[in-house]
Amino acid sequence: MDPIHYSVAELAERFGLEVRGDGARMVSGVGTLAGANASELSFLSNGKYTAQLLSTRAGAVVLREENLADCPTTALVAKDPYVTYARIAALFERLPAAPAGVHPSAVVAASARVSPGASIGPCCVIEADAVVEDGAVLGPHCMIGEGCVVGAQSRLVARVTLVTRVTLGRRVLVHPGAVIGSDGFGLAFDTDHWIKLPQLGGVRIGDDCEIGANTTIDRGALEDTVLEEDVRLDNQIQIAHNVHVGAHTAMAGCAAVAGSAKIGRYCMIGGNAGVLGHLELADRVTITAKSLVTHSIREPGEYSSGVPLQDNRLWRRNAARFKHLDEYARRLAALEKDKSDD
Amino acid sequence: MDPIHYSVAELAERFGLEVRGDGARMVSGVGTLAGANASELSFLSNGKYTAQLLSTRAGAVVLREENLADCPTTALVAKDPYVTYARIAALFERLPAAPAGVHPSAVVAASARVSPGASIGPCCVIEADAVVEDGAVLGPHCMIGEGCVVGAQSRLVARVTLVTRVTLGRRVLVHPGAVIGSDGFGLAFDTDHWIKLPQLGGVRIGDDCEIGANTTIDRGALEDTVLEEDVRLDNQIQIAHNVHVGAHTAMAGCAAVAGSAKIGRYCMIGGNAGVLGHLELADRVTITAKSLVTHSIREPGEYSSGVPLQDNRLWRRNAARFKHLDEYARRLAALEKDKSDD
Amino acid sequence: MDPIHYSVAELAERFGLEVRGDGARMVSGVGTLAGANASELSFLSNGKYTAQLLSTRAGAVVLREENLADCPTTALVAKDPYVTYARIAALFERLPAAPAGVHPSAVVAASARVSPGASIGPCCVIEADAVVEDGAVLGPHCMIGEGCVVGAQSRLVARVTLVTRVTLGRRVLVHPGAVIGSDGFGLAFDTDHWIKLPQLGGVRIGDDCEIGANTTIDRGALEDTVLEEDVRLDNQIQIAHNVHVGAHTAMAGCAAVAGSAKIGRYCMIGGNAGVLGHLELADRVTITAKSLVTHSIREPGEYSSGVPLQDNRLWRRNAARFKHLDEYARRLAALEKDKSDD
Repeated sequence: MDPIHYSVAELAERFGLEVRGDGARMVSGVGTLAGANASELSFLSNGKYTAQLLSTRAGAVVLREENLADCPTTALVAKDPYVTYARIAALFERLPAAPAGVHPSAVVAASARVSPGASIGPCCVIEADAVVEDGAVLGPHCMIGEGCVVGAQSRLVARVTLVTRVTLGRRVLVHPGAVIGSDGFGLAFDTDHWIKLPQLGGVRIGDDCEIGANTTIDRGALEDTVLEEDVRLDNQIQIAHNVHVGAHTAMAGCAAVAGSAKIGRYCMIGGNAGVLGHLELADRVTITAKSLVTHSIREPGEYSSGVPLQDNRLWRRNAARFKHLDEYARRLAALEKDKSDD
Repeated sequence: MDPIHYSVAELAERFGLEVRGDGARMVSGVGTLAGANASELSFLSNGKYTAQLLSTRAGAVVLREENLADCPTTALVAKDPYVTYARIAALFERLPAAPAGVHPSAVVAASARVSPGASIGPCCVIEADAVVEDGAVLGPHCMIGEGCVVGAQSRLVARVTLVTRVTLGRRVLVHPGAVIGSDGFGLAFDTDHWIKLPQLGGVRIGDDCEIGANTTIDRGALEDTVLEEDVRLDNQIQIAHNVHVGAHTAMAGCAAVAGSAKIGRYCMIGGNAGVLGHLELADRVTITAKSLVTHSIREPGEYSSGVPLQDNRLWRRNAARFKHLDEYARRLAALEKDKSDD
Repeated sequence: MDPIHYSVAELAERFGLEVRGDGARMVSGVGTLAGANASELSFLSNGKYTAQLLSTRAGAVVLREENLADCPTTALVAKDPYVTYARIAALFERLPAAPAGVHPSAVVAASARVSPGASIGPCCVIEADAVVEDGAVLGPHCMIGEGCVVGAQSRLVARVTLVTRVTLGRRVLVHPGAVIGSDGFGLAFDTDHWIKLPQLGGVRIGDDCEIGANTTIDRGALEDTVLEEDVRLDNQIQIAHNVHVGAHTAMAGCAAVAGSAKIGRYCMIGGNAGVLGHLELADRVTITAKSLVTHSIREPGEYSSGVPLQDNRLWRRNAARFKHLDEYARRLAALEKDKSDD
């Protein structure tokens, strides 16, 4: 493959940036401040890396105007260097080739509608009445279940399973091992055993969503499970049936949302955090890692649960005391009462 | 496909219910009280939806006798409306067609025994000496490893992997991405590196179990990992080697049980709860979400750990104090002693 | 298949053990002290099973010299019976046959380099420029993405996906459902929506690592995600981009490590424990199950967070008090001050 390269001046032109230094310098890749070489571009966004700027060997650096004085090389001045860097770096990404057409090893039902502009990889299975729109890319081992829709320009990297009644919007990116549209966990207890509730709803995923590796999203019991546009889910996330996630919300790895919870827009759910069923979270709520949300949250803000990590020996002593906290509070109140009665 | 429809009188007859209203009304689907239309049936089980009953447009509603007065439409009176609704809704579920036979893209070992009444989907792999019994359905991308058995009428929705020495009972339902029979995590530390313990046992799954998407169940080290009948596992659950789960126990998403733990019958394990290895839980134990079970539980009941969610600023103050809880308890006791010494 | 059998004397010779009893006794399998029969070998490592030794019917037992007096059968004396047992048990493991060559249903890119001594199972997909070295075994449904390398003697049990820029060392064992080299979760927030950061790094896995079922390891953003040699990961673990895990570290099921964290050598991370991003853990750090690591750890030792499990009714009272812990601490200090002011 030919190398990809741009002059600093071309990048400035394309992204509306100001150059300080040698605009003719050629850049053929990106790197960290500490690791980039003279043909690579780097960036400074987080103030704690300022020291690394001083000694960087990068060919060019994207930074804020206030860091210009410390920059030993060509600079590209941006209001938000991280966002600008993300756009530039995307120029250097090489996605695997995905030629339009259906690989001969794929199995496509006669009633499925696959756009001639879509790319269907080896060992994919596309079932009855499924639709794959123009420019969509399915890597190896994907399954598109009966009646599911993959929107235009969406990309299923590999081994993605859409079970049934799943609709992906446009430019949705799904990573390997994700399962979308599996049965919700609906059970009724009948005297001495469980009866399964059929899961008759579907899943609707909005445009520009990203779904991480081995993440699971169940379909609704009666109505749909919904992710609005630009929802970003990391790996191994569990979204139960009838959950509704507002636009632009992001969840870190191993987060889980129980059935029928409604998460607002622009929320941030930390790693391995959990939200119990039927709760509502307002817009712009942040939940820190490993917290459990046990009641609805009406106000934007940051919420947490958990206790701090300690040396195991100290922790054991404190944790044992937790079992008597209510008693301590009563004893404290009794002492205060004695005091005031004196 | 032809629509499925039943008269209210037919449903009453089939499930032993009492009709109040128009028994000739035709029902062709199910819906929520708020969303159902005149050709759909709904149900009222949870008292907090009683207000929705008053304004429902459903064609018929399954409910308890005590709610009859508030029902604006045809009613079907049931002792347990949720269970009855589950049975009725099952009539309206359309499972994907699963014709008996082996799809030409599937790879079946010569020594495997696949019933002519089983359905083997595209890209399945069935290895030596495996058995697939009558009426079993394997969706696309399933693997049945050497010597594994899939019982009659079991359904592997898609992309299910049974590794080795796995036996599924009858009517077992397994969702995509599940891995059953993978190596248990058995290691011995030899001076400065790990030695692997071969995992020589298998997995036995009882009749009527359900295994969620991306759930993992390891095979035993020497003896088998066992799920008795009617065990219900949600998505992304981890069952380690030699675990034994009693009949009718249900676990919510992301729960995990460590090696050799023995869970009783009719237990309920909440989402992301954990059980440490070698513990025993009695029958009818409930563990709330995200709790960690660190000792055996001998009595039925509900058990919990964790601390409540708070605004992050308040939480930080309280969490910091947790590190000194033992000291506070001692100081409290000292004050009390001073008091009594006065 | 012919049964595998060894005399006790042969085992003693092979592993440098001392025989007490009948060296001619034949052993054809292994079992627990309670379950082994006269043709099976067992072991005693953990003192709490000593009572089971007295009544064992095993043909031979591996044990420490100090337990010889209680052994009713032929004994093999070892310094570390668990390690010795692991080595002996491995003799009795039968791995599925894996004939060298490419299964006709596999899809191999013309530019891929697959050793003639490798075994490529049914429905595998090997993409452009990938390399599979001698003696490597790929079970069914594996995908080796563009440019990935599978080292000699490595085994991908089934349905393992290596996305891109992944290098596995030698003798790496990967269980089904694992995804290695998926996109790291890198996002920049641009005014009102997310921008994706391309993930341009790879993943390097050292020799003798083991990766559990449905575990996910993301590739780096710019540099590589790294597991040094002999790292052992259980099932459903999440390793984010740019994490570095030191040699011989083991993690139990459902543990998660956030981006750019650096874990030392010989660490033990408990089940469902979490490590926040950008932290460093020294060598020989143990984190107990479900703990959250929120700051770097400089000293070896055992660390914990969490509160103990209680009956739900008691727990509710204590948990409610946690929300006022800071206030209690202040009130306690106030009482003490009053006291000293007296």
